[in-house]
Amino acid sequence: MRYRKIPDETVRRLPVYLRGLLFTSEQGRENISSQNLGDLVGVNAWQIRKDFSYFGELGTRGVGYSVEKLAAQIKKILKLATVQKAALVGVGNLGSAVLSYSGFAAYGFDIAAAFDANPKKVGRKINNIVIEDISNLRTLGKRKVTLGIIAVPRRAAQETADGLVKAGIKGILNFSPLYIAVPKKVKVIAIDIAMDMARLPYYMPSG
Amino acid sequence: MRYRKIPDETVRRLPVYLRGLLFTSEQGRENISSQNLGDLVGVNAWQIRKDFSYFGELGTRGVGYSVEKLAAQIKKILKLATVQKAALVGVGNLGSAVLSYSGFAAYGFDIAAAFDANPKKVGRKINNIVIEDISNLRTLGKRKVTLGIIAVPRRAAQETADGLVKAGIKGILNFSPLYIAVPKKVKVIAIDIAMDMARLPYYMPSG
Repeated sequence: MRYRKIPDETVRRLPVYLRGLLFTSEQGRENISSQNLGDLVGVNAWQIRKDFSYFGELGTRGVGYSVEKLAAQIKKILKLATVQKAALVGVGNLGSAVLSYSGFAAYGFDIAAAFDANPKKVGRKINNIVIEDISNLRTLGKRKVTLGIIAVPRRAAQETADGLVKAGIKGILNFSPLYIAVPKKVKVIAIDIAMDMARLPYYMPSG
Repeated sequence: MRYRKIPDETVRRLPVYLRGLLFTSEQGRENISSQNLGDLVGVNAWQIRKDFSYFGELGTRGVGYSVEKLAAQIKKILKLATVQKAALVGVGNLGSAVLSYSGFAAYGFDIAAAFDANPKKVGRKINNIVIEDISNLRTLGKRKVTLGIIAVPRRAAQETADGLVKAGIKGILNFSPLYIAVPKKVKVIAIDIAMDMARLPYYMPSG
């Protein structure tokens, strides 16, 4: 089945809904109303209903949406239904936090490899992942790794991105403050903690 | 001056534009077109022009927008023009990465305090910030700290949020996978690396 013409803003919200649904499922609840999901994730109920209507999910009056069914459908749309292997580059504080993070599996991600340029770190193990030398990056294609996570210092970000692209990586999560240049076919999502925090003060009461 | 009725989705994109403008300014460029800004940050040029029209920024044909002026205006709208003090709670790998991160100042944030429950960490210094015992949280109000960053283990997240709210914190950046319950007047933004990564596969070529 194809789901075409889902607006980018809806695609941006689908993982937010998915996160709320996974949490609701953990709590042992089978159904949820758009209102309750909206309160949980901080999106208006009407927006949720509109977003879900793009792929024909209308819910049942008085019962709401099936949590499991909806989560499965969102995963399918986002291509998370099959496991996607990811590689981390840069095992400093941030990289170590990424490797220790247990939340990837719920979204179908498998952190399958980690690389660092520091010989002292190579061979160490975090969360059962052995840190490899950066020169091993080129083996990623053979290992069916499709995603890269850049957690290296700013000065090494572009070089790392180039290496990931060369190895056949198709999507990059970039923690570096640098804008990295990649071919059009490679999708990059930038994570900048300060930028995310920059949305807070607007909504805070002043004085 | 007041800027009312800026849609939430536009508020969400303003920090993205600001990040692009700060980067452009660093590169020594004084003007930028909506097309170039769009290419840099990954948003359509028409969307940028529409977003800026909410606060009357129309740019100049053939010249584009003044980078400095536009950055200043976005900072003003987002209430980033005056320094906002933030406190970090939880100095593990992630917390250490947050403390070491140099990108906060550009958005007007000052990480003014860090707390941990582990006595062994108390007194240590990262990036000139001395780690304090968690019991000091209640002093935040007096110290004019308005923002809190939660980087504690999941089981301690709600308790930490309660402590921050009690201390008078008005906005929280939550790295924990838990949804924390806070009074309506407190704004929470959740950061979930896996959730952010969940947007990638949708845009990746399959096969």
